[in-house]
Amino acid sequence: MGKTNLELVHECDKFPYYEDDRAFYAAHLKNFHAFKVSGCDSVLGYILNSVVEKFYWPEDCWSIDSTNQTVTLVTPPDATADQRSQLVAKTLDEAVKRGTFEILKGWRNELYPVYGPGGEFLLEMERSASPLFGIVSYGIHGTCYVEDENGLRIWIPRRSRTKQTYPSMLDNTVAGGMSTGEKPYECLIREAMEEASLPEDVMRKTAISVGCVTYFYVRDSRAGGETDLLQPEVEYVYDMKLSADIIPKPGDSEVEEFNLYTVEETKKALANGEFKPNCAVVLIDFFIRHGILTPENEPDYMEIVARIHRRLEYPTASHATK
Amino acid sequence: MGKTNLELVHECDKFPYYEDDRAFYAAHLKNFHAFKVSGCDSVLGYILNSVVEKFYWPEDCWSIDSTNQTVTLVTPPDATADQRSQLVAKTLDEAVKRGTFEILKGWRNELYPVYGPGGEFLLEMERSASPLFGIVSYGIHGTCYVEDENGLRIWIPRRSRTKQTYPSMLDNTVAGGMSTGEKPYECLIREAMEEASLPEDVMRKTAISVGCVTYFYVRDSRAGGETDLLQPEVEYVYDMKLSADIIPKPGDSEVEEFNLYTVEETKKALANGEFKPNCAVVLIDFFIRHGILTPENEPDYMEIVARIHRRLEYPTASHATK
Repeated sequence: MGKTNLELVHECDKFPYYEDDRAFYAAHLKNFHAFKVSGCDSVLGYILNSVVEKFYWPEDCWSIDSTNQTVTLVTPPDATADQRSQLVAKTLDEAVKRGTFEILKGWRNELYPVYGPGGEFLLEMERSASPLFGIVSYGIHGTCYVEDENGLRIWIPRRSRTKQTYPSMLDNTVAGGMSTGEKPYECLIREAMEEASLPEDVMRKTAISVGCVTYFYVRDSRAGGETDLLQPEVEYVYDMKLSADIIPKPGDSEVEEFNLYTVEETKKALANGEFKPNCAVVLIDFFIRHGILTPENEPDYMEIVARIHRRLEYPTASHATK
Repeated sequence: MGKTNLELVHECDKFPYYEDDRAFYAAHLKNFHAFKVSGCDSVLGYILNSVVEKFYWPEDCWSIDSTNQTVTLVTPPDATADQRSQLVAKTLDEAVKRGTFEILKGWRNELYPVYGPGGEFLLEMERSASPLFGIVSYGIHGTCYVEDENGLRIWIPRRSRTKQTYPSMLDNTVAGGMSTGEKPYECLIREAMEEASLPEDVMRKTAISVGCVTYFYVRDSRAGGETDLLQPEVEYVYDMKLSADIIPKPGDSEVEEFNLYTVEETKKALANGEFKPNCAVVLIDFFIRHGILTPENEPDYMEIVARIHRRLEYPTASHATK
């Protein structure tokens, strides 16, 4: 017996729910400090207590309250996002110099944004540090598929065996994180070329926005670096129906190969745990939207649909064009 | 300025969220008694305090705890679902005889199931009484559309002006509640013939299961009967792409007429508040899945997606075929 779809969802949406067990939830939160920014009431992320202890927090810009379990970036009331980002960057640079965190060895030179209530842009920080602060990250996932007389088949890449995170696991056709200022559709177009050599005109002709999946991931050893770090995520989801003559090819060193999987082969690989956890969730969403998983054949249908569209407890961003 | 999509979602998903304001949520719950069944720990629904006061609760089978705010159906440990259902039916019959509740004047002669943890079938009760107990109800919604050189157009019915609930409002092509034992797909087929005169073979050829929407509705005056009653709902969602020669026609007295609406006309009718609230939600879900609402053009994208896939705080049913 392989993994059920609900088990796969649970691997990705692992942070407990208040409603399931109020006492357990409250006890669990004790393992974290809330990440805050002065002048903003909202919790922007949760930092593991062990991470709070290890960090060197310069006193001129950080206030650690061990009673209320908060870590607050303290800046003048008129601070700009840029000023906040620089203070965080300095703290991270020091952590890298001291070699405090394993996860920062995967430094990406890519900046992830942090938003306050109403989508206000508060600051940005290095991507590899985001799970240390437990902030929401944003990305895109796209599924390329072929539907012809052979049925529906999906283009599935295998990650490079030298990749830092989830080496050799199966992935979605196109996937990637959105840097500050990037729009979802543009991110999709960029990643499609970088990772799958899919030309822009093909993408613009075929890519359809079909929703988003949201979940609250807790990093395990397969993710690399420290475990139990928090990673609440929003992934905008796209479908691309391709004609059989368009063949994705590895465009960088991240992907080893692409193969066309039948629905049955995909289901088997899912049950075998061959997919990176959040890719499994996007495929399950694809199966639900395409009538492959139905209320009649999936016993956990409703729970799965609700869990992969989790309402995150943080302020989130709008990516609408103003 | 008409209603935003998020405002439309909020009209349908109106019960507060714990995470938004913990104190407000706790205070709000004080307006309700929890509906329970002896031998089962779960809360199965919430009953307005004013409803608890008005009901005549025979002491031999109901235990009202005003300190813990619970209403418990008390039966022997070996009670069957049938026995529980009969006790509830007797209580409801008495309420009808006494004319206690306006909402029971809309008696449907249709039984809605109540499930315990693990999907155990606990009892069933008259459909029109379900909002008095605040139990989860299950239904199906299907959107018939045409996609041709004129773009995408949707078959939208106007409800009969003599209908008890939401008279003259716009609806989805096919919609209906699932009685005890009914499977979603079979419910869809039945309702399609009853309400839209769409033959079974057309439905079996075109209907695709595409997900479910879940929300926690609070009844307002448009719903008829007492206001503020709770109605958490699960609606299984289907898409039917029809060729232009298949034309839905009213099959019973519930629908006045069907019209083909362009996307722009549908959006305008949504913003004007012309749709029954839960039908608006299903159309918003349709727009999201079909690339009409995107992260770039809908500022509240993520919040909308999460809210219309709410994880209900009750045990829910599986409709999988065993």
